[in-house]
Amino acid sequence: MSSQTKRPLNILQNLVGKRVTVRLKTDVEYKGEMDNVDAFMNVILSDAEEFTGKEHATKYGKVIVRGDNVLFIQIADDIL
Amino acid sequence: MSSQTKRPLNILQNLVGKRVTVRLKTDVEYKGEMDNVDAFMNVILSDAEEFTGKEHATKYGKVIVRGDNVLFIQIADDIL
Amino acid sequence: MSSQTKRPLNILQNLVGKRVTVRLKTDVEYKGEMDNVDAFMNVILSDAEEFTGKEHATKYGKVIVRGDNVLFIQIADDIL
Amino acid sequence: MSSQTKRPLNILQNLVGKRVTVRLKTDVEYKGEMDNVDAFMNVILSDAEEFTGKEHATKYGKVIVRGDNVLFIQIADDIL
Amino acid sequence: MSSQTKRPLNILQNLVGKRVTVRLKTDVEYKGEMDNVDAFMNVILSDAEEFTGKEHATKYGKVIVRGDNVLFIQIADDIL
Amino acid sequence: MSSQTKRPLNILQNLVGKRVTVRLKTDVEYKGEMDNVDAFMNVILSDAEEFTGKEHATKYGKVIVRGDNVLFIQIADDIL
Amino acid sequence: MSSQTKRPLNILQNLVGKRVTVRLKTDVEYKGEMDNVDAFMNVILSDAEEFTGKEHATKYGKVIVRGDNVLFIQIADDIL
Repeated sequence: MSSQTKRPLNILQNLVGKRVTVRLKTDVEYKGEMDNVDAFMNVILSDAEEFTGKEHATKYGKVIVRGDNVLFIQIADDIL
Repeated sequence: MSSQTKRPLNILQNLVGKRVTVRLKTDVEYKGEMDNVDAFMNVILSDAEEFTGKEHATKYGKVIVRGDNVLFIQIADDIL
Repeated sequence: MSSQTKRPLNILQNLVGKRVTVRLKTDVEYKGEMDNVDAFMNVILSDAEEFTGKEHATKYGKVIVRGDNVLFIQIADDIL
Repeated sequence: MSSQTKRPLNILQNLVGKRVTVRLKTDVEYKGEMDNVDAFMNVILSDAEEFTGKEHATKYGKVIVRGDNVLFIQIADDIL
Repeated sequence: MSSQTKRPLNILQNLVGKRVTVRLKTDVEYKGEMDNVDAFMNVILSDAEEFTGKEHATKYGKVIVRGDNVLFIQIADDIL
Repeated sequence: MSSQTKRPLNILQNLVGKRVTVRLKTDVEYKGEMDNVDAFMNVILSDAEEFTGKEHATKYGKVIVRGDNVLFIQIADDIL
Repeated sequence: MSSQTKRPLNILQNLVGKRVTVRLKTDVEYKGEMDNVDAFMNVILSDAEEFTGKEHATKYGKVIVRGDNVLFIQIADDIL
């Protein structure tokens, strides 16, 4: 692995402590504060809320999402 | 693998002995005490109960869940 | 691989000679005596019986199940 | 890995700062400026817009798409 | 890889020259004499017959089955 | 990896600059000039056209197809 | 990797120059002369014909099939 291939991970590390939206391949979304993330996009969120549709939210405590379920992580444009 | 990529695993190790909910990609959930977990999210639960819906629970003894089936592991916010 | 990531495998090795239930991702279950198991959850069962539903069992001799088909391995709570 | 296998990655790196279209295996498309990309085709887009059909666009801020969802990345012929 | 993780493979090697049934994830079965097998469960069978149902068999010559299609390999209890 | 396992890649490298057809697992085809290809069958095509059926073609500029989507690459018999 | 795990590949190399049938996971078959094959079962066939059913064949020139699509490679019993 060259240093080039680590860049996206480094940016992911900058997300720690920020509020993010994690959309899964199933289109379910989890919003919360990112506690941690690794190169496989395993994500630990606190104060997590699950959105299966726009009108429905379920509150969770802390969730550790396995990275292979992730479609994308969305953040506000001015964070990174 | 840098030390950064091990952080989520370290946090997973902190879950040993705690009660957790493991949700699979099929939406089935297993609740139990986490006996062990590794970097692939292979999970060993004791006193495991299977929930296929909110009203139905099946009691198991100990189950060793293969990590690639895992969607997320949920814990109470004050544990980690 | 650190020693931490081998712990679940070590526990799997303790299952050799015990009766287990292996549930596949397809929900089919195989019950039998565990002859061997490795880190990928490739499992060798002897006196194996296949359960596709609660009322139906097919007897096999020995089966070597490829690990990527496994959902979980279930054991009695007092074994490990 | 030989130097040959890095060529497509090098070309990907040339896309940083350019406008691209990322089509997913689900046929959803994301258009935006490429902030970064790695060898797994993990892609960071800013000013991202999601197109689920030709007439519908949703604006996002910044998205980090997990590479295993990607079908292709499309660019104008005169960029590379 | 420790010596522990090679045990199932060693047992697989003991199957060479024996008659086996290879069931695929699609439930199609191939019966034949095992010419060879490797750690990915790539299997070479000679005098292979394909069973898509209990009443239907198609004769093949030699087939080399890619391991990732395999559900299990079944053998008589007294072979291993 | 032995030198044997690189042979198909070497042949792939001979395709650079030639016109090829890339068929995806979804049966969609892309025809174009191969700009580059690597061992994962990540393919860069220029002057790419997409064929979803025999009568319909969409023109693209340059596309970088992620290799895991590829079913096969077809070429004229006299090229290699 | 031990020498044992390379045996099936060695046998695959013996197929070069022989006529083979490659069946894909989709049940489509390609018949042709094997120009090359590697450990992932990436296969290069010349004079390839595609069979989607028993009565229908489409002629191709040369095709390079990505190995992960392969179900099995079939050969005459007397070749190996």
